[in-house]
Amino acid sequence: MSKYRTNIKVKKEAHQIFGINGAIALLSNNQNYNIETIDILEKGNALSSEIITELLKSYRPQITYLTSDIFHKKYADKRTQGIVVSFLGDIIKTLPSFKEVDGNYCLLIVDNVTDPQNLGQIIRTAECAGVNGIIIPERNSVGITDIVLQVSQGAFCNISIYSVINLNQTLSQLKEDDFWSIAVENGIDAKPWYQIDYKGKTAIIVGSEGQGIKPLVLKSCDFHATIPMQGKMESLNVSAATSVVLFERLRQVIN
Amino acid sequence: MSKYRTNIKVKKEAHQIFGINGAIALLSNNQNYNIETIDILEKGNALSSEIITELLKSYRPQITYLTSDIFHKKYADKRTQGIVVSFLGDIIKTLPSFKEVDGNYCLLIVDNVTDPQNLGQIIRTAECAGVNGIIIPERNSVGITDIVLQVSQGAFCNISIYSVINLNQTLSQLKEDDFWSIAVENGIDAKPWYQIDYKGKTAIIVGSEGQGIKPLVLKSCDFHATIPMQGKMESLNVSAATSVVLFERLRQVIN
Repeated sequence: MSKYRTNIKVKKEAHQIFGINGAIALLSNNQNYNIETIDILEKGNALSSEIITELLKSYRPQITYLTSDIFHKKYADKRTQGIVVSFLGDIIKTLPSFKEVDGNYCLLIVDNVTDPQNLGQIIRTAECAGVNGIIIPERNSVGITDIVLQVSQGAFCNISIYSVINLNQTLSQLKEDDFWSIAVENGIDAKPWYQIDYKGKTAIIVGSEGQGIKPLVLKSCDFHATIPMQGKMESLNVSAATSVVLFERLRQVIN
Repeated sequence: MSKYRTNIKVKKEAHQIFGINGAIALLSNNQNYNIETIDILEKGNALSSEIITELLKSYRPQITYLTSDIFHKKYADKRTQGIVVSFLGDIIKTLPSFKEVDGNYCLLIVDNVTDPQNLGQIIRTAECAGVNGIIIPERNSVGITDIVLQVSQGAFCNISIYSVINLNQTLSQLKEDDFWSIAVENGIDAKPWYQIDYKGKTAIIVGSEGQGIKPLVLKSCDFHATIPMQGKMESLNVSAATSVVLFERLRQVIN
């Protein structure tokens, strides 16, 4: 049993992914998920992708080709690019121990983010920036909804996502596993984001623009990083701030 | 007359801004725009903002307080936070000469971006990162729609936005005005984004994920910057990539 308390689910969850990039990521990474059905728009965009047509060869029994009328009625208001994959699987994993991990290893903790657009973008950006895993507190955060999956463009297939109940407890455990924790927030004691050392094992915590990071969590972090604003606007969008910090980390660890 | 060809409009354009941050930015920066009407939801969120209630004192004739029924019928599906400001004014300006400007001065050129969410986020991020102006080619880009304004959270009030017809011609003129041009794209000859020198007068060009920057534009740029991807996903969202590059620039110019 893991030493971390997490929500353990027995039944596999049902999800849908819309769009070409998401479908490619999912269909080429099928060891973790059961592909249930693949709805394809006849003569649609998805079929002009060579990668999609190649991948579909392994999923013939699951495919249904739909006429424009039926497809658009079924997926009105969705940005599908002509492909919708329904699948079963637990996207959210149980947090393991990271004691044995070494080198540059980064976990991104996303606190209080309730906007699915933001969470989806953050997952996508984290995957591109070489982050090793994402931790999402169960409360006060948007879940892994289909919008989150779509905005992430399939990145959820290539990066581990963990859910935790008590973020403070998780941070204590991560400290025992030799992580430094860095909160991204605009406090008085915060250093500019590029003056923080992101090498080694780091947990980077970001919070929503409105609620921010919970005060207790903030207090227990080793370092506070700020992104000083040059304009008159008070704050960056949380997914933009996350991009800035994660790629500064990448700059440091690849040099 | 400006030496740059732009779209010159005679009639002032009508726009709406939704939400507290946008309203604050607009109402506290009223020299450029005519505030026509301010619709406020009775007992709504906007009225619990002290800054909003203070600003509203200067706009009494324009204010209408609406009951919940009427307000929500009028602004169904909009994220208003209980305030909607209708105003007249040209958000898009004519590109001036930048010959006399010196020091660290940055223009961001946004090519082929058709998603209003992305354009709005880019405007917001650029303002926070101290960019001096944004240039948008008239063709193949989303216009300054109300969604763009809303996502920008009012940043359009504090940063100049210029429209141009021929981007290649604009780049030639900027070169004459002593700008270096840097295209953000993943070509073979591109350097990692942090190896580019962003000091002085720079024009940074970003393009959409799908279309990218137009080949002719790309060819005439002095430097190509790439953000190498660490994961399996092919590309970052354009607004995330823009955040990465603009804050690397900021890191360089404030040090």
